[in-house]
Amino acid sequence: MIKVIIIGAGNVSSHLYQTFSKAKEVDVVQVYNRNHEHLNFVNEPEKRTSNLEQLKKADLYLLAVKDEAIRKIAEKIPDNKAVFAHCSGSIPLTELSLFENHGVFYPLQTFSKNKPVNFKEVPVCLEANSAKNLEFLKKIASAISDNIFEVSSKQRKALHLAAVFVNNFTNHLYALAADYCEKNELPFKILQPLIKETANKIETLPPFSSQTGPALRNDQKTISAHLEMLDDDQKKIYTILTDSIQKLHGKKL
Amino acid sequence: MIKVIIIGAGNVSSHLYQTFSKAKEVDVVQVYNRNHEHLNFVNEPEKRTSNLEQLKKADLYLLAVKDEAIRKIAEKIPDNKAVFAHCSGSIPLTELSLFENHGVFYPLQTFSKNKPVNFKEVPVCLEANSAKNLEFLKKIASAISDNIFEVSSKQRKALHLAAVFVNNFTNHLYALAADYCEKNELPFKILQPLIKETANKIETLPPFSSQTGPALRNDQKTISAHLEMLDDDQKKIYTILTDSIQKLHGKKL
Repeated sequence: MIKVIIIGAGNVSSHLYQTFSKAKEVDVVQVYNRNHEHLNFVNEPEKRTSNLEQLKKADLYLLAVKDEAIRKIAEKIPDNKAVFAHCSGSIPLTELSLFENHGVFYPLQTFSKNKPVNFKEVPVCLEANSAKNLEFLKKIASAISDNIFEVSSKQRKALHLAAVFVNNFTNHLYALAADYCEKNELPFKILQPLIKETANKIETLPPFSSQTGPALRNDQKTISAHLEMLDDDQKKIYTILTDSIQKLHGKKL
Repeated sequence: MIKVIIIGAGNVSSHLYQTFSKAKEVDVVQVYNRNHEHLNFVNEPEKRTSNLEQLKKADLYLLAVKDEAIRKIAEKIPDNKAVFAHCSGSIPLTELSLFENHGVFYPLQTFSKNKPVNFKEVPVCLEANSAKNLEFLKKIASAISDNIFEVSSKQRKALHLAAVFVNNFTNHLYALAADYCEKNELPFKILQPLIKETANKIETLPPFSSQTGPALRNDQKTISAHLEMLDDDQKKIYTILTDSIQKLHGKKL
């Protein structure tokens, strides 16, 4: 059994804890967080700790903490023969280069507190400072996911930025639409099947090919009518995205 | 059996044809399109017509054509006792007021040529010029969908605009991300589970509550790093959406 200690108590940490706990090949021996009260998601109280000096020995220390805390916490861990891996999309591998064995274990998914995720489908992006450490991380990742990728620090940074577009920005467009529905006394759930289908479509069609709508058709009448219905901030977003669609599809110079 | 004639040969029309053909309560007696060649999706050749003067009698004429063609085509249909309904999100009910019986039958979904849709889940937005005609449209809609809404012309217009945000604009963000992945030699499919989960999340959490990311955290370091990685057009989109997230969440005045 591979011994893993998880550092952190956020959504990534709690999902990793739950997923690893079910994997035969992995034993989560401890979960650390500065604030002990945030560790209630750990079923076994004896595995909870808020004291870095009381950390047990492990094969892997997984740092699922905020970007700026990764190195600070890692430096305080007494064990230095194990593999240290962080779970961040934007921090380079070299952040942990003070350790002989280090790597990155980045699960590319959005995790919410009380919403279970099928981890088998979550892409896990791996990077390590040696072939041996990479193999080790692959072994652990394959215990929980069928979707493993080798991704360099540079690529991971690009991926994280792309994720901001398809997750954070997309979710914000949902939020603006929900707001707009509320103002017009429409239930937001009326848009849910459309939202799901838009997301599902990309499995069979590249998004470029499945683009539709007034911007693509260059339907100025509808575009003008829409602009009249929006406030100034919404108008800016509508205009910039309409222009961008037309540019991508070669409808505008 | 309710006799329906479908006008048009686009994606909405072909999906309606396929769905109604399976419904016991409805008999699609004919499908019209100006260009006969586009009617190959109609399994029975005798039901295809490109001649408005050869249209049979029906209880409902469903106009699934471009917005600007709705009235022009409707005026040419000899039968004028039947119900005339269009399938547009942005055209008011009154567009068909020259007919004694008229309504709107707007399926709020994105339809692609070769991708089947589970119509039972598609919201169908109905409106009619009389209670009797509304009941009639409800009867037909409930033969194919479990998701029927009564929506006024004004609300439907707002809904159509909200749909542009969650479908057209969202899909464009996917397209920009796909482009960006390609440039960084990353497979776009690595983002698919994230895209699906982002869309699925809104069934259990309102999008306002499930917002995450550097904009929400006001993580200026990551935001600056991201901006440096983007070209000018992408930068504009990143900035305007980041500002909008911060404004909605009260992080910015």
